[in-house]
Amino acid sequence: MNAELIAVGTELLLGFTVNQDTAFLGRVLAGLGIPCRRQVTVGDNPGRLAQALRTGLRRADLVITCGGLGPTVDDVTLGTIARVARRKLIPHPATRRAIQARFRRIGIPMPASNLRQALLPRGASVFPNSVGTAPGFLLKIQNLKGSDPAGSDPKVPKVLVALPGPPAELIPMVQRHLVPLLRRHAGRGVILSRTLKSTGLTESEVDARVRDLLALAGPVTVGIYAHPAQVDLRITARARNPRAARALIRRVERRIRSRLGNGIFGADDETLEEVVGRLLRKRKLNLSIAESCTGGLVAERITRIPGASDYFRGGVVAYANSAKERPIGVPGSLLRRFGAVSPQVASDLAGRIRKLIPAHVGLSVTGIAGPTGGSRAKPVGLVWIALSGRGGNRAWRFRFTGERQVIQFKASQAALNLLRLHLIPAR
Amino acid sequence: MNAELIAVGTELLLGFTVNQDTAFLGRVLAGLGIPCRRQVTVGDNPGRLAQALRTGLRRADLVITCGGLGPTVDDVTLGTIARVARRKLIPHPATRRAIQARFRRIGIPMPASNLRQALLPRGASVFPNSVGTAPGFLLKIQNLKGSDPAGSDPKVPKVLVALPGPPAELIPMVQRHLVPLLRRHAGRGVILSRTLKSTGLTESEVDARVRDLLALAGPVTVGIYAHPAQVDLRITARARNPRAARALIRRVERRIRSRLGNGIFGADDETLEEVVGRLLRKRKLNLSIAESCTGGLVAERITRIPGASDYFRGGVVAYANSAKERPIGVPGSLLRRFGAVSPQVASDLAGRIRKLIPAHVGLSVTGIAGPTGGSRAKPVGLVWIALSGRGGNRAWRFRFTGERQVIQFKASQAALNLLRLHLIPAR
Repeated sequence: MNAELIAVGTELLLGFTVNQDTAFLGRVLAGLGIPCRRQVTVGDNPGRLAQALRTGLRRADLVITCGGLGPTVDDVTLGTIARVARRKLIPHPATRRAIQARFRRIGIPMPASNLRQALLPRGASVFPNSVGTAPGFLLKIQNLKGSDPAGSDPKVPKVLVALPGPPAELIPMVQRHLVPLLRRHAGRGVILSRTLKSTGLTESEVDARVRDLLALAGPVTVGIYAHPAQVDLRITARARNPRAARALIRRVERRIRSRLGNGIFGADDETLEEVVGRLLRKRKLNLSIAESCTGGLVAERITRIPGASDYFRGGVVAYANSAKERPIGVPGSLLRRFGAVSPQVASDLAGRIRKLIPAHVGLSVTGIAGPTGGSRAKPVGLVWIALSGRGGNRAWRFRFTGERQVIQFKASQAALNLLRLHLIPAR
Repeated sequence: MNAELIAVGTELLLGFTVNQDTAFLGRVLAGLGIPCRRQVTVGDNPGRLAQALRTGLRRADLVITCGGLGPTVDDVTLGTIARVARRKLIPHPATRRAIQARFRRIGIPMPASNLRQALLPRGASVFPNSVGTAPGFLLKIQNLKGSDPAGSDPKVPKVLVALPGPPAELIPMVQRHLVPLLRRHAGRGVILSRTLKSTGLTESEVDARVRDLLALAGPVTVGIYAHPAQVDLRITARARNPRAARALIRRVERRIRSRLGNGIFGADDETLEEVVGRLLRKRKLNLSIAESCTGGLVAERITRIPGASDYFRGGVVAYANSAKERPIGVPGSLLRRFGAVSPQVASDLAGRIRKLIPAHVGLSVTGIAGPTGGSRAKPVGLVWIALSGRGGNRAWRFRFTGERQVIQFKASQAALNLLRLHLIPAR
């Protein structure tokens, strides 16, 4: 079985919207071991959509459309599919009731146009929409004229799936309704992947340590992907079943971890702030933060995580120099002597914030995010980060490149990473 | 002239990468008045790429590929284009020199594979790459076999453009080299658009006020797009030249502004924090912030803007209750009597932060971001925001829905918007 995706929407062609649906569906299909050969995007144009559907159904076993199922005249997917598949649109009472109930719930009268969404092609398996009004559906199409006999078995019906465009509607619908159905259709074989995330190492440093693994060919491959202050290694395995794929991944993961050690902070969807939070909770420590050039970003990242109140006490955004003196209490003489961006002031900030908002660990960030404010001695991108704990205070120097927000992000990443390394028990 | 885009890369089909290039190119083409009819994505597969190129060149006047120009064996675009267009690949000395110079600059030896990138199809106009190694190029192709006579003038050559995949390389190349060339090729007529951004109003409120404009058909149309705590109205105009398009847009913009008034905070790329910063600077006022449930997000958004030090003094992230008492000095009795999430504590926080980190305006946010910590009287999503100025303190109540980070974002948006409305001179 192989697949082709068709995204429908003039806003996609005009670039007003970045298509998230096809990337999501690509990952889902890969996870099911269904190769996706093409993605096609057309506008809200019945003629070009019909052509894309006919071509798609000729060369692929499974065609999935996303978008164009809304209630307005712009939404052409439903009518075009009915025409191409030669199926009548007939009322679907359960969908009609669901749409009516939805409008009752939100307390506004239902526009007549929404009833169009309760008409569905005869013989369709319907996927209820838990978030919006447009249901999705699956149609099996036998004996399609002009189907490519070389590409597929003519006795096996083609599968055509229509999904709504908004990711908030499409994603739960795919997970709840489409994946279980496709799992039965899918051939044997899956593609699974796992991403190991590192920080504190440059792309060339990571590359140098795992170059032989990046050259792996065969059922397991490794790719390297650089982001600001983060380098990811993605292991992709092709195997007969998920268990075999996971075993292949595990073997390569062990090799990567033995090369990069603590450089790897997490995997897949894990974020650095999540990992740091988990370490603080595990070690029963809490944290206060004093930050200047990051303007609140370090505290904000820490508090994105639910339950951060278990280990985060609070912080001061000491943006103006005077805000370092008061409320934190950095002596004016220290600021004048060494400057705000110095190891002395960074250490002092970390030590004082730990006392001011009492916590086990104090973290401070002070630097020059730019674009102005740099000098030859202290250029834009210079950042000092300090930690304060029972063992004393210590500061680290960084020099980041990029635009203001990139420097701010890299500084927050370095600060969280120093904290992480500080919290990991020494080996 | 009409266009078709072909994105090349297995990582796009597998969903590892979300395609940003096609959205960017879609906006560029729309701005030049070149209708883009289709986007096609294929993997790193010479056969399917060749098929997509042939189909594209048959039905469109301009075909643009992005991706697959790298130095590895996976990168199939160059060879496939040479084959489809029947052009030999010949050495391009300037490109060779540029690639060698680049490797000298970054101080690592040039892998032999990179020299492949200095071979280009005979007759190509070359676009230098200012960021990476792979140049882009443009080929004119006359008398293509099987070209669709209905779709285009056979005497006009087809244009095939190849661009590198990384947006950091593609975007400057398009702006510097492709746009000037296409401007000459493009027919008369442009599509321009302008987005007006509102906050503080729900989608239905905005919809109710501009419903007649949303129904506009013809050369100017208006679309409505809802985001968390923000509703955008996009005006799109099709006209003979940019001046005429801008005049059409201006007329509709005036009508929208007269209906939504201060509900609109900005246009196009403007952000709320930018607008607030501009107002503070204009009114020569500065700001201190005390925030709890937003964990530093309000300060972080303010300090994203270059030059924020002109009007931002600093802030306290009073996350734990004790951090509201110290360093800010909210009386423990007030916290016990009304609770941290109350108009009394919000007002007190705003008033005290304005004194603690001396500023003209104090802003405070206190609420329950969830997922835990809510009660029947004070549910998750309840947020109090207060402003303190020379005229006294005032607090506003909000009830936001969504997940933790959505609530945090909406609260930051509401806080910045209250500040904005406070800074706008009364009409």
